[in-house]
Amino acid sequence: MPKKIVAFGEVMMRLQVPGYKLLTQANTLQYSFSGTGVNVAAAMIKLGYDGYLVTKLPTNPLGDAAISYLQRLGIERNLINRGGKSVGMYFLENGFGHRASRVTYTNRLETSFNTASLSDYDLESIAELADIVHFCGIALSMGSNVRESMKVLAKKVKEKGGIVCFDCNYRPSLWDGGYSKAKPHYEDMLTLSDIVMMNEKDAMHILEMKTPKTSREEQLIDLIPKVATNFDIQTIAGTHRTINRDNTHSLLGYMYKDQMFHFSEHLSFSVYDRIGAGDAYTSGILHGELSRFSPKKTVQFAAAAGMLACTIVGDSPMSTETEILSAIMGTIEDIKR
Amino acid sequence: MPKKIVAFGEVMMRLQVPGYKLLTQANTLQYSFSGTGVNVAAAMIKLGYDGYLVTKLPTNPLGDAAISYLQRLGIERNLINRGGKSVGMYFLENGFGHRASRVTYTNRLETSFNTASLSDYDLESIAELADIVHFCGIALSMGSNVRESMKVLAKKVKEKGGIVCFDCNYRPSLWDGGYSKAKPHYEDMLTLSDIVMMNEKDAMHILEMKTPKTSREEQLIDLIPKVATNFDIQTIAGTHRTINRDNTHSLLGYMYKDQMFHFSEHLSFSVYDRIGAGDAYTSGILHGELSRFSPKKTVQFAAAAGMLACTIVGDSPMSTETEILSAIMGTIEDIKR
Amino acid sequence: MPKKIVAFGEVMMRLQVPGYKLLTQANTLQYSFSGTGVNVAAAMIKLGYDGYLVTKLPTNPLGDAAISYLQRLGIERNLINRGGKSVGMYFLENGFGHRASRVTYTNRLETSFNTASLSDYDLESIAELADIVHFCGIALSMGSNVRESMKVLAKKVKEKGGIVCFDCNYRPSLWDGGYSKAKPHYEDMLTLSDIVMMNEKDAMHILEMKTPKTSREEQLIDLIPKVATNFDIQTIAGTHRTINRDNTHSLLGYMYKDQMFHFSEHLSFSVYDRIGAGDAYTSGILHGELSRFSPKKTVQFAAAAGMLACTIVGDSPMSTETEILSAIMGTIEDIKR
Amino acid sequence: MPKKIVAFGEVMMRLQVPGYKLLTQANTLQYSFSGTGVNVAAAMIKLGYDGYLVTKLPTNPLGDAAISYLQRLGIERNLINRGGKSVGMYFLENGFGHRASRVTYTNRLETSFNTASLSDYDLESIAELADIVHFCGIALSMGSNVRESMKVLAKKVKEKGGIVCFDCNYRPSLWDGGYSKAKPHYEDMLTLSDIVMMNEKDAMHILEMKTPKTSREEQLIDLIPKVATNFDIQTIAGTHRTINRDNTHSLLGYMYKDQMFHFSEHLSFSVYDRIGAGDAYTSGILHGELSRFSPKKTVQFAAAAGMLACTIVGDSPMSTETEILSAIMGTIEDIKR
Amino acid sequence: MPKKIVAFGEVMMRLQVPGYKLLTQANTLQYSFSGTGVNVAAAMIKLGYDGYLVTKLPTNPLGDAAISYLQRLGIERNLINRGGKSVGMYFLENGFGHRASRVTYTNRLETSFNTASLSDYDLESIAELADIVHFCGIALSMGSNVRESMKVLAKKVKEKGGIVCFDCNYRPSLWDGGYSKAKPHYEDMLTLSDIVMMNEKDAMHILEMKTPKTSREEQLIDLIPKVATNFDIQTIAGTHRTINRDNTHSLLGYMYKDQMFHFSEHLSFSVYDRIGAGDAYTSGILHGELSRFSPKKTVQFAAAAGMLACTIVGDSPMSTETEILSAIMGTIEDIKR
Amino acid sequence: MPKKIVAFGEVMMRLQVPGYKLLTQANTLQYSFSGTGVNVAAAMIKLGYDGYLVTKLPTNPLGDAAISYLQRLGIERNLINRGGKSVGMYFLENGFGHRASRVTYTNRLETSFNTASLSDYDLESIAELADIVHFCGIALSMGSNVRESMKVLAKKVKEKGGIVCFDCNYRPSLWDGGYSKAKPHYEDMLTLSDIVMMNEKDAMHILEMKTPKTSREEQLIDLIPKVATNFDIQTIAGTHRTINRDNTHSLLGYMYKDQMFHFSEHLSFSVYDRIGAGDAYTSGILHGELSRFSPKKTVQFAAAAGMLACTIVGDSPMSTETEILSAIMGTIEDIKR
Repeated sequence: MPKKIVAFGEVMMRLQVPGYKLLTQANTLQYSFSGTGVNVAAAMIKLGYDGYLVTKLPTNPLGDAAISYLQRLGIERNLINRGGKSVGMYFLENGFGHRASRVTYTNRLETSFNTASLSDYDLESIAELADIVHFCGIALSMGSNVRESMKVLAKKVKEKGGIVCFDCNYRPSLWDGGYSKAKPHYEDMLTLSDIVMMNEKDAMHILEMKTPKTSREEQLIDLIPKVATNFDIQTIAGTHRTINRDNTHSLLGYMYKDQMFHFSEHLSFSVYDRIGAGDAYTSGILHGELSRFSPKKTVQFAAAAGMLACTIVGDSPMSTETEILSAIMGTIEDIKR
Repeated sequence: MPKKIVAFGEVMMRLQVPGYKLLTQANTLQYSFSGTGVNVAAAMIKLGYDGYLVTKLPTNPLGDAAISYLQRLGIERNLINRGGKSVGMYFLENGFGHRASRVTYTNRLETSFNTASLSDYDLESIAELADIVHFCGIALSMGSNVRESMKVLAKKVKEKGGIVCFDCNYRPSLWDGGYSKAKPHYEDMLTLSDIVMMNEKDAMHILEMKTPKTSREEQLIDLIPKVATNFDIQTIAGTHRTINRDNTHSLLGYMYKDQMFHFSEHLSFSVYDRIGAGDAYTSGILHGELSRFSPKKTVQFAAAAGMLACTIVGDSPMSTETEILSAIMGTIEDIKR
Repeated sequence: MPKKIVAFGEVMMRLQVPGYKLLTQANTLQYSFSGTGVNVAAAMIKLGYDGYLVTKLPTNPLGDAAISYLQRLGIERNLINRGGKSVGMYFLENGFGHRASRVTYTNRLETSFNTASLSDYDLESIAELADIVHFCGIALSMGSNVRESMKVLAKKVKEKGGIVCFDCNYRPSLWDGGYSKAKPHYEDMLTLSDIVMMNEKDAMHILEMKTPKTSREEQLIDLIPKVATNFDIQTIAGTHRTINRDNTHSLLGYMYKDQMFHFSEHLSFSVYDRIGAGDAYTSGILHGELSRFSPKKTVQFAAAAGMLACTIVGDSPMSTETEILSAIMGTIEDIKR
Repeated sequence: MPKKIVAFGEVMMRLQVPGYKLLTQANTLQYSFSGTGVNVAAAMIKLGYDGYLVTKLPTNPLGDAAISYLQRLGIERNLINRGGKSVGMYFLENGFGHRASRVTYTNRLETSFNTASLSDYDLESIAELADIVHFCGIALSMGSNVRESMKVLAKKVKEKGGIVCFDCNYRPSLWDGGYSKAKPHYEDMLTLSDIVMMNEKDAMHILEMKTPKTSREEQLIDLIPKVATNFDIQTIAGTHRTINRDNTHSLLGYMYKDQMFHFSEHLSFSVYDRIGAGDAYTSGILHGELSRFSPKKTVQFAAAAGMLACTIVGDSPMSTETEILSAIMGTIEDIKR
Repeated sequence: MPKKIVAFGEVMMRLQVPGYKLLTQANTLQYSFSGTGVNVAAAMIKLGYDGYLVTKLPTNPLGDAAISYLQRLGIERNLINRGGKSVGMYFLENGFGHRASRVTYTNRLETSFNTASLSDYDLESIAELADIVHFCGIALSMGSNVRESMKVLAKKVKEKGGIVCFDCNYRPSLWDGGYSKAKPHYEDMLTLSDIVMMNEKDAMHILEMKTPKTSREEQLIDLIPKVATNFDIQTIAGTHRTINRDNTHSLLGYMYKDQMFHFSEHLSFSVYDRIGAGDAYTSGILHGELSRFSPKKTVQFAAAAGMLACTIVGDSPMSTETEILSAIMGTIEDIKR
Repeated sequence: MPKKIVAFGEVMMRLQVPGYKLLTQANTLQYSFSGTGVNVAAAMIKLGYDGYLVTKLPTNPLGDAAISYLQRLGIERNLINRGGKSVGMYFLENGFGHRASRVTYTNRLETSFNTASLSDYDLESIAELADIVHFCGIALSMGSNVRESMKVLAKKVKEKGGIVCFDCNYRPSLWDGGYSKAKPHYEDMLTLSDIVMMNEKDAMHILEMKTPKTSREEQLIDLIPKVATNFDIQTIAGTHRTINRDNTHSLLGYMYKDQMFHFSEHLSFSVYDRIGAGDAYTSGILHGELSRFSPKKTVQFAAAAGMLACTIVGDSPMSTETEILSAIMGTIEDIKR
């Protein structure tokens, strides 16, 4: 029986201008449905798990379309509540070279998910079902009812013996009060978590930790062990990513566990669609931990999963374990027949 | 110097599933920008007028895209305020035969236009500029600030000697309190108007007028003269439209002026995209009145304009006076070379 | 708990030339996955049931794509066996007016489904799960192993108290030996069935029954009761369909039950995509029977379901009970907002 | 050995707005290459003949694209001269219902074909090769060098025993001097022709013939025999076509031969793309004559060929003899599997 | 009040094969409307100016489409004359790697613009309106009437105190007599100009100037000051551009003013669509000069504008001042949210 | 009179997911027809030869579409036999960066070509016609009847004085018995061949030759002369190809003739579509040999042809001699106008 991964999070409708036109130039859009929770669940399904999403979607054709799309990814529909008024949306204009991609959000706060309350979800049964539950920090900015549902569900899963995974993601534009308003909620989630995705910037900005170090690597090595200790977290992992001049990105993955750091190779690779690469990295860490890979193998696997996600159209990772393992080697293969 | 038509209204982003798929089946959308005001202004530009829109659009790529689209239609951008958070949107799934088209709205109330206040518009200058100003009743449902802007602008245009045109359109789902809440605002606008688009149903439902008659035609002939008298309206016009079994629609236009009714022929025609046909009819009435056509010719012209708008892709009418006049004859021409 | 509908049948990849070009003129295809079983399961899911498919698909990207597509329709993947070499395919060129649509099949006999054997399916568990099992007669032509699986599964479901539904469909080009070779296998299935889809032509051609009547209606009324008696079938249903000159089709549905005939209205309607209409009719009969509709309502419902399926892109019906009930009235509605 | 059909005429690049948008609304075009000669040659190839085109195309990527397209239709490239500056082009906006299709030409007179001279073609060899040569009257308007090539080639083919077919097509906008300037050239071609496509309007307008009759049918029956006699033409054929209100066209074909008129059934049918239907009718007449069909069968066959051409995307007919023969019956078939 | 930029030049219809197919392989085209004047006006509008085009377009659907497209870019339609026969066109096949892009022109000389005469434009009012007028050297090859309009308009603008900008562009295939025929006309324009776009090659080839230097940089530094002196030009600017093996281009911008050279950084960047990059550079120089940027900042700004134009689909630049300023830094940003 | 190149081989329908989606993500496919023989014939036609294909295609719409496509490439249809059941197909998912492209075949063995027998082809006439005949080793795996046709045709062409070219391609998945089963058939073909495409791997794996060398280059230089001697082959040629990290490929071409090796430059270049590059290389060798280029020029030309084929959409090369010669220089040109 495959393990059950439950992600809690919003479904976002991605409305993308095809090719490299701007919204002012084009007249068609490609749409799909994603979100951190969707991406993590979809990636885990490709790795052989059962994937669920706890969310709320409106009872209209947009909600129906979202569910069809999630089902196509293999996500079970039975934990999804229906109701409310709308789906979250973002418009994506692809960048090229020195012109950056642009994302324009609409109506974040009025969506079905962000106006859902605790009672919309049967959290008891969900906690019973889940082997792992995944949360993303961005959802913490969506108001007190969303925050309440997150914390209650995390607590219940922990009580039932499940693993709580928290991605310490932070979007500045979504917090009126800035870091100081966000900090206590991130701390609450960290206290409840077993596996955390973050890096030194999150420690410095969200948790307001100080370090005398100046390079990113030294800051990481200084701060992450303190986070692990302070919040009693089993595993912390994350990436350093840079954009190069020749249309490639570079990625270094790390994982801190049992008081030791493990790093992936420095990977450099061509990027087709970078959204969702972080979620692929998360799924790689989760799979490595669940499969009892060595920490070194886990972080390599996660980095390769992140790299391959950048070669896939759309936000949701689509690679199997076999494909990721063969990409760890870093060779580019000819046509597979 | 062409006369200046100023429409006050919201710009809606239309997101249409191409062909006949449902949102759950497709993955692309075609987008354009429309709205009653946009449609009337665009139609009048095609008829030789200068067309303006008074509206508010966000300062983001969606707002930029909307303005580019309006400019393509020939609408001047200089009366458009920038700011607020979002553009109104609707998703359209085309029906076929016995399966009706479906429209799904998102976030009506939080848009830039619906949260704009009186001070966002330089109403004085707008009133100075306008030969005709056009309003749509649907905007009355959008809250007190929108209503205030409408009434103030209508009053100012009237004071400057301009013509006020009001389309008595009503969308039930948008009024919490139903007709009784809406009625006083419609009455305010009718009192300020010179040309009104409506039919007997509006009189009975919105204005709560009674009639002993049972057929639509008789109700119309009973009620419309009373509306004209009650609110001192120069011209009232509208249509009766029916959907036939063989994929055609039928249209009968009427105009009431100087205490007389005038009717178009009964037109029957194939329909490609019926949205915007009512706005084309409005533009036909306005053009006929401004051009001092005979009432009979005006109503024929307006009906033909409405018919041709149903053969045009998108909401905004695209036909010239020459094309509409030749369609009055009702013959279907072979290829024009 | 919704009832569980299990369909046994092949997944076909439909490769359709977009619009009205021929394969010699075009260079793109639209693909989807269907088949009688897929269509019936998908239609029943839309009507509120849980839908399963018993089939076999290859472990390659085409098999993956088929499963993603089935999941999008809501079909559960857990009864699908993986293995074998290929997916069944058909190319579709849309007809227009007096030019008929054309279907070109490839490689029917070498597909994973048609080379699967009894042991590929866990028929015991499937029979345990199924409230209804559905079979299509076309599969009988695919060889002895497919026929064996069909008969064994039908018998097991019947033993467990489930309902067996058999669609008496026959494709002449697929039987080398013609009707005489097919007859005993159809008789075996009829003997095991509770609900059968067929009409008088099937009785005359496949079952070699004779009738002195000459009109289709009289032949139907003469023969169907004899079939019901001979094979002890609870419900037999089917349609008479004609293609009209003005791009519309006409449909008359019938149902024979408890020794009485019930007929739908004669429906005439525009057709966008007629493939799958018969499967929609089947789903309407099944839903009516399971919901204990009156026979008259059931046959009306099934006919309306068949009509609406002709307005939907692709083979698989997509209409809800509400939509079908409102179509029974036969009115064509304006845009639904 | 199939007979060899040689068409003399210009290749036109057709640039069509997809769907029903106007050029001011769209941003993509579909292109193909056609022309009366191309259409007749392509139609004859589908009917089993070898088809050639005598024309001139520029030595640039547009000329290359034209030749690739002609080859796809099966037209041999070896009689095509290369040189000159450009390809003829027309833009097509599809009409819908009461909105007529629109064709916009560019640069007719400067094209490679219209600036070609007699010496560009090896007319001696062409005449040797041709069993039939086909000309279209529109080319007569393109200047004296084109006219000279036409007349010389017609004469040479006649001398070698080949059949000369002339389509009496006339495009008013292309003749500066009107009918009186055109008349002598049409008379020259008629004198050289064995099979002529025309109807009573051509006789009245181009040949300035008079008739006391008022209905089209009577005028036809009065005038065509006189044309046949005056110019010693073996076979004259043509059509009466009308556009109906319900998106269908009606077609009546006639053929006059051996001093007798033969008429097709009155056909009524849905139309997808009417351009090229006349050329399909021509090909039907030629095939009937070459196959020694009875005159009645020939005219029926030609009318059905014209009808089917209206169901085919693009200008060039694509139907086989089998398909046309089955369409003569007028039944609309279900899907062909 | 924004300054008014008036460009004089032809509108070209760009017909581009999508993706990387050749014209012989594809069947669709994407169309847009551009030209040096269009590009410079559009770029200046994005930078906050009012942009006008002086041109002539036919009164047919192609002319209408061109005007709609210009309006979408924000260009005012009121200086555009209507009449003549056709729009200039070019077909574009995108190159890839070692396969160069190909442009095929049609009918340059017969277009509405190239057959327009002095009296088609109200040059007096245009000169009154313009703060800057822009000309491109390519138009000089189009015949004496175009040349006359250019020189008269330049003179009138200069008299009214406006700035004359001349782009010394030269297309060899368009001059029958070669450089010697072109030279006097370029000299006439240079004499009238305040700001000139050119580099050392133009000085050597068009103006037949000699230099003993061998490297491009030395030739530039030797010759440009002489041009500035000879023709009394305030500012001369231009670029050196090279194509690298790895799908990037390199760009060095220069500006010569007040007897000093200023150079941009050497920029290297990925290129999506290089057409129009020179016009973006021109707009950067004009904006820097009008905004009284330091010469160093102006040339940096212009080079970044040129670089960003290579990342934009289509010929016309679309970048704002903010975007260009941030690109000067040369960092590639992650997704902008 | 151009020389006649006859290729013997299967026509494959290529069904490609557009862009970079997977089959599980997309819903459209682009189709074309190719195969080694098609590619070599098409490439030779572009180089000025007459190209023929000996193959068998079904008499259904897929066979018709294949022939239309071949004709578009200029391939003559008169050596193509019609009959059998199906066309070979492969699905292509484009890779990106570290994600490799994937090819999924269907039904190789049941196709018309692979079930054709000796008597389906008029080998005597074909041998009479052919100046060169081309075979691909992959066809040897398709069964004894295909092998028989290949050997008989090669022998007949050789007898008539034509040149036999054999591409020693080997696809492991297609041989049940592995190399040892394949070896005698490859040896038979090598014995009959004048020009052979292969490299050291083919010698080592298929021919089971041994070498003490370890680098690819040394192995090549050791083994190829022995192959030439053993089988008395006039010319052997091939490539070494590597995939680089930055989305480029590197290519080194070699040719062994008259006991000497000749090598091309090491080319590095961007790749759009690598399928068919080997066939382009073959066509370059053939053209060089037929044109009596120096061996050095031939191998350079062939390598440049292979490089350019990687910049062309689809399998079939499209470059002319002029284009290839200019690419030998290795410079990347700006837009060609």
